[in-house]
Amino acid sequence: MVSATQSAVSSAKVMQPSSLSADSVLNFARGDPTMYRAYWEKLGDRCTVVISGKDLMSYFSDAGNLCWFLMPELDRAIRRLHRAVGNAEVGEDRFIVVGTGSTQLFQAALYALTHTDKPDDEILPTSVVAAAPFYSSYPEETDFQRSKLYKWAGDAYSYEGEGAYIEVVTSPNNPDGAIREAVVNREGGKLIHDLAYYWPQYTPITRKADHDIMLFTFSKATGHAGTRIGWAIVKDKEIAMKMVKFMELSSIGVSKESQFRAAKILEVISEDCLNPEPNKVVNFFEYGQVVMSERWEKLREAVKASGAFSLPKYTQNFCIFTGKDTDSNPAFAWLKSKEGLNCDDLLREHKIVTRGGKNFGVCPSLTRISMLSPDEEFNLFVERLAAIKGSNSNGSTNY
Amino acid sequence: MVSATQSAVSSAKVMQPSSLSADSVLNFARGDPTMYRAYWEKLGDRCTVVISGKDLMSYFSDAGNLCWFLMPELDRAIRRLHRAVGNAEVGEDRFIVVGTGSTQLFQAALYALTHTDKPDDEILPTSVVAAAPFYSSYPEETDFQRSKLYKWAGDAYSYEGEGAYIEVVTSPNNPDGAIREAVVNREGGKLIHDLAYYWPQYTPITRKADHDIMLFTFSKATGHAGTRIGWAIVKDKEIAMKMVKFMELSSIGVSKESQFRAAKILEVISEDCLNPEPNKVVNFFEYGQVVMSERWEKLREAVKASGAFSLPKYTQNFCIFTGKDTDSNPAFAWLKSKEGLNCDDLLREHKIVTRGGKNFGVCPSLTRISMLSPDEEFNLFVERLAAIKGSNSNGSTNY
Repeated sequence: MVSATQSAVSSAKVMQPSSLSADSVLNFARGDPTMYRAYWEKLGDRCTVVISGKDLMSYFSDAGNLCWFLMPELDRAIRRLHRAVGNAEVGEDRFIVVGTGSTQLFQAALYALTHTDKPDDEILPTSVVAAAPFYSSYPEETDFQRSKLYKWAGDAYSYEGEGAYIEVVTSPNNPDGAIREAVVNREGGKLIHDLAYYWPQYTPITRKADHDIMLFTFSKATGHAGTRIGWAIVKDKEIAMKMVKFMELSSIGVSKESQFRAAKILEVISEDCLNPEPNKVVNFFEYGQVVMSERWEKLREAVKASGAFSLPKYTQNFCIFTGKDTDSNPAFAWLKSKEGLNCDDLLREHKIVTRGGKNFGVCPSLTRISMLSPDEEFNLFVERLAAIKGSNSNGSTNY
Repeated sequence: MVSATQSAVSSAKVMQPSSLSADSVLNFARGDPTMYRAYWEKLGDRCTVVISGKDLMSYFSDAGNLCWFLMPELDRAIRRLHRAVGNAEVGEDRFIVVGTGSTQLFQAALYALTHTDKPDDEILPTSVVAAAPFYSSYPEETDFQRSKLYKWAGDAYSYEGEGAYIEVVTSPNNPDGAIREAVVNREGGKLIHDLAYYWPQYTPITRKADHDIMLFTFSKATGHAGTRIGWAIVKDKEIAMKMVKFMELSSIGVSKESQFRAAKILEVISEDCLNPEPNKVVNFFEYGQVVMSERWEKLREAVKASGAFSLPKYTQNFCIFTGKDTDSNPAFAWLKSKEGLNCDDLLREHKIVTRGGKNFGVCPSLTRISMLSPDEEFNLFVERLAAIKGSNSNGSTNY
């Protein structure tokens, strides 16, 4: 399997966003959410943080808290935002664990769910599964340390192993935007819910998610990927403690500068959601929804003009955040070659780099395309896509 | 074994630095370097960073660099500082890999040195050793993931295993401040040099260190532990690439806010070292040296007054940074009970929490005491220490 991260990184090296031309290679393999930059620019100084040399020096943020490296202002900001959006249960009995992105927290959750004091030769590794198509980095993130505690066991739909397993439920799903539930549902199973994209700009918020371990990430929520802040909302105290232990051993906590800034930005978003004023800009999620919706419209037009591809169809749902029926506008487009061609290869011929279906555990006629690139790149992409003609171009654009 | 991190964390919870009294429990188990705060306060706005909502959004810092998430300004600042201090070789052919503290980089180095494409059942785990007394977190950091690639194998002095091994060389050593070299020296051995304390405030800089993998950390260099920035200087390109790969899989890079701030602070230090001006405050290392030297003097006086303890003796050496013969003033005191009592227990009876010898692979008559606590705590500590009387109090204070 091609390493998804590696292919994204190496392809990033060939792209020069500042000098786009008809010949430029466009990288849509990675989900770098830089398109939200325009919004944060509009907000001017409202989200600015100032940190002097003497600030944020100690390892400790809140020694009395179970998660001793979590800054109290970030804890508050996370809970307030979830309450404002209505997308996750964050009652006083839930524990927040902060991580260096949700990537680190995914590994902390695997550790917490499989930790044992047994000697090595008595350990049976727990199987880790996810329904295909699954996020392309799960297999490698699970296996790269060669842990005796857990191992990647592939597609949850075809999982037939005995004993302990962990199912990762990604909803909305990366790559295809589908709303997901657990599929194995056997005794002894444990669940990690990756809710990175369960925000109003991507999908209607239909209910307050309330699962054992829920992962969120600042990068997909607001676009600040470089900040590397993720958080887990955890029901069970023992599991939360083990996740904190993982974070201690893995990196002795999480950057305070990043926590401080994330807290500030999340507070501004919550404030604008809860206390809108006529002369303020729209809140971040409304903005995101408009931008994503425009992009999806352009993409669907290009797919129609081409005739060579199809896209998933999403049904409208009532969104409790916006208070109206709302479309899904996923962060990725899951594009299919109608003729069953290798879709990633086909697009690379047109200098569009995507992440092919095989990375996600499915066939190569599908490929994943980031919908979060800068405007200029996105517009060039849809232009090129529309110009790709299939040998049979009169089919439906949905499947 | 008591978890060193856990004991530091749980003991931190009982300390209330703002309300110290004769009854207060003093936590000297952890190495939280908050005592440098006074210096950074003196510098006023010179190290202040301002980050607006639109800044530092992308995952990528320098897509053309091997370490694609390393900010170019931090790369430059690290190299400039090492050149100013003379403590490590950072020629153009050396690779810098940034991490979430040197803790994460230690694990990245283990991964890079043992990575293989072999199937699980063909892997022989590489032994990881360090000469006792060794840093108390190495065993747990090595083993917590239960990797098939490597395993903790204890004291390097007594290591008799066959085949591949990794020796961690910590110099100056944590906990005892000793200058160290590799002790196993067998074919097939690989080395990780942990040089966290190889800075002029702790030890004379006697030569430019030049090893395969050298780890440094911002927290011990400048006192900014909460920033979670460490860096590795790596000779071999393949090893550097694997360490970068580890960082990608572990946390998709490192906080940009932290990198940005670390770059700023390291630049200010370098500038003050290279271009001193009469009306400027002394450079950070000179300040650190004075403070550490005063503390060691106070500690030695207290140990003498008590009579129940002894401390290691360090020889003066010519420091190429200061240009004169200089004492060692380690970040930790490695205190011994002259009567062979459990030193950690003895101090806990006097409400001084330390980290006992067993955590470092040696006997409990020794214990480690942080020399980096706030002034008020340090002063109360030496006062209490001086008052502890042994049954025989006329011996030497050095061993």
